[in-house]
Amino acid sequence: MASGDLEWLDGGVTAVPGILAGGIVAGIKPSGKKDLALIYSSTPARAAAVFTSNQVKGAPVLVSTEHVRSGQAQAIVASSGCANVCTGERGIQDAREMTRLVGELLRIPANHVLIASTGVIGVPLPMDKIRAALPKLAKSLSPQGGRAAAEAILTTDTRIKEAALRVEVGGRPVTIGGIAKGVAMLEPHLATMFCFVATDAVVARGALSPAVRRAVDRSFNRTTIDSDQSTSDTVAVLANGLAENTPLESGARGLRQFAGGLEALMTKLARLLVADGEGATKLVTIAVRGATSRRDALLAARSVANSPLVKTAINGQDPNWGRIMMALGKSPARVEQEKVSIAVGDERLVERGMLKEGVRLERVREIMGESEYDITIDLGLGRGEERVWTCDLSEEYVRLNAKYTT
Amino acid sequence: MASGDLEWLDGGVTAVPGILAGGIVAGIKPSGKKDLALIYSSTPARAAAVFTSNQVKGAPVLVSTEHVRSGQAQAIVASSGCANVCTGERGIQDAREMTRLVGELLRIPANHVLIASTGVIGVPLPMDKIRAALPKLAKSLSPQGGRAAAEAILTTDTRIKEAALRVEVGGRPVTIGGIAKGVAMLEPHLATMFCFVATDAVVARGALSPAVRRAVDRSFNRTTIDSDQSTSDTVAVLANGLAENTPLESGARGLRQFAGGLEALMTKLARLLVADGEGATKLVTIAVRGATSRRDALLAARSVANSPLVKTAINGQDPNWGRIMMALGKSPARVEQEKVSIAVGDERLVERGMLKEGVRLERVREIMGESEYDITIDLGLGRGEERVWTCDLSEEYVRLNAKYTT
Repeated sequence: MASGDLEWLDGGVTAVPGILAGGIVAGIKPSGKKDLALIYSSTPARAAAVFTSNQVKGAPVLVSTEHVRSGQAQAIVASSGCANVCTGERGIQDAREMTRLVGELLRIPANHVLIASTGVIGVPLPMDKIRAALPKLAKSLSPQGGRAAAEAILTTDTRIKEAALRVEVGGRPVTIGGIAKGVAMLEPHLATMFCFVATDAVVARGALSPAVRRAVDRSFNRTTIDSDQSTSDTVAVLANGLAENTPLESGARGLRQFAGGLEALMTKLARLLVADGEGATKLVTIAVRGATSRRDALLAARSVANSPLVKTAINGQDPNWGRIMMALGKSPARVEQEKVSIAVGDERLVERGMLKEGVRLERVREIMGESEYDITIDLGLGRGEERVWTCDLSEEYVRLNAKYTT
Repeated sequence: MASGDLEWLDGGVTAVPGILAGGIVAGIKPSGKKDLALIYSSTPARAAAVFTSNQVKGAPVLVSTEHVRSGQAQAIVASSGCANVCTGERGIQDAREMTRLVGELLRIPANHVLIASTGVIGVPLPMDKIRAALPKLAKSLSPQGGRAAAEAILTTDTRIKEAALRVEVGGRPVTIGGIAKGVAMLEPHLATMFCFVATDAVVARGALSPAVRRAVDRSFNRTTIDSDQSTSDTVAVLANGLAENTPLESGARGLRQFAGGLEALMTKLARLLVADGEGATKLVTIAVRGATSRRDALLAARSVANSPLVKTAINGQDPNWGRIMMALGKSPARVEQEKVSIAVGDERLVERGMLKEGVRLERVREIMGESEYDITIDLGLGRGEERVWTCDLSEEYVRLNAKYTT
């Protein structure tokens, strides 16, 4: 393996040495599916996390924010079916109690346990069921338990999301593995979205958190399903150091290699989230270049990626480029209509703001029939580039959300 | 009629003395429905207009912007079925030619004709058909033609929208009447939205335009159907002065009375637009109070009004208040979750950011079953108030837009 190269591995978070996980049925979900997950590092780990920027935050987010401040953690407990959001003082007490009980079972301090919950807002956690289930959850921990944990954090997801890779840092291979969930309320700065990552890399104090923030910004913060933003989003990373590499220090080449691996892993998980967006049938990359700045490129890409009319056209496999022009024009990014060109896949559709002469619309429709493709927009103004992943807006999305109480 | 009081009248734009209108089939729409409309003031009129703020603008918007600059106009020609947007130099020439031909038929200067087109983007107007139809359109003008004109500007609208009222200004009654269209790409600053208003009021030079801008801001710019914004939006007002009132000068009481009437008329038309939103089954007023500023109140109201998850919950008649909390929290407005209260109709649902004890959820569901209701949010922080009208997001909206090429 060449230095800095990635090698994808099977499995997810438990592909990492020293990481155990488990997932069980606690009875929180009325469906009777798995709803309680635990990830455990057998040795103390460096920890960093990023949470929702929504001003309304769930109790687990508040408690985890406090616990991660020390930069150390050894376990992550997560429940699905009830978000424990807008539940007042009682919600905070419930979240604290869960971390305390997990800490006692694993013989670690409560503040080395991170917590995350997803599901319905405004309903208290069924603590009796959770108290009864936690000992069983701790017993379920195993080096093969990543998949069960990935399953236990799902809500309306249709598929589990896990990924793992090996990357050489400073001449030594380290493993990074993770699981994720999230299919709606998903936009920019995280939303009903969890991503739990573990790595055996030795990362110096102060170096993990910036690497995590950057990877999140380049992966999850470039996705959108419906422009809504959850109150519970959590990305947490545990680094247990079992790879015994030279500690990754800020500014060192090894840290850049590690950060590249982290970004690749999170990008893979982020794309899995969008592809499994509620009711989604397509994963579309909106790539913008030629913007006056990178910020403008991102604003333009987001405006297209979030437009309900663009998203319904993607659903209908309709090469309705006028809606893309409309979405560009309404964005705060600088746009001059007569300089815009647009390609779908490898077929140029729009030139100088107008339908390209001789465009093969049949070819465009064919590309739009695929489950993954790119829409590339050149604003013709400068050198700013960005890309965002989006999905279509389908009748199924509306059906799911008109009936499901989140 | 007491001074400043409004009296609603039957009819629309031709309820105003001296205003003729007509609408015919020119063959632009494949459906064979009416698609060409004309409004004509038999005497020269003061004119003011507001156009889309989208950076991508249709050719008719560019031409009308130029023509309205003189503050005088006598006719408005509008077509539906083809928006004449992203059509390059040819589109501009076509729009200019239409105003020239209408001017010749009505014996008025071309630059006293305003033009507006709505429909598919990126396709040139079928000018042969339009040239052939214009003489017939001019002949169709009549004092009863407002309804035909209202019909000829529709696209996916299911109902015509017209309104008229009489208001006393400075002791003299004046009439204001208008027609409107628009059912998608509809958000803040206007979108595939036309509103053509006529009045017999005498308005002083320089006084009409600010009154129109303010009325648009308080009516159409407070609506949202899908957060998308068209490239063709046009609100145009003709004031022909036949009421022979004392000229309405800036700052005068009469102008405030007139502006009140204009705002009432535009508000009625704006609500008709939202109620007929594509696939919409509900017209919901999102009222926010207790914000730290009026601007914050508007930001919070818009965030709730545009949230796909709130809009699908409205569609499903689901009292899913957690989504309202989420949408408030993601808005740029200052929000403290433990100070928020929310009422649906007259039933208080949320207090201090949590479900209110003893709330009658059955009563909330009953209110949400009605076709019009209010959601009132108190942020508990200050005195800022605003309101926005929105509709639900339905499977029908997706069905319409996945298949219809706009």
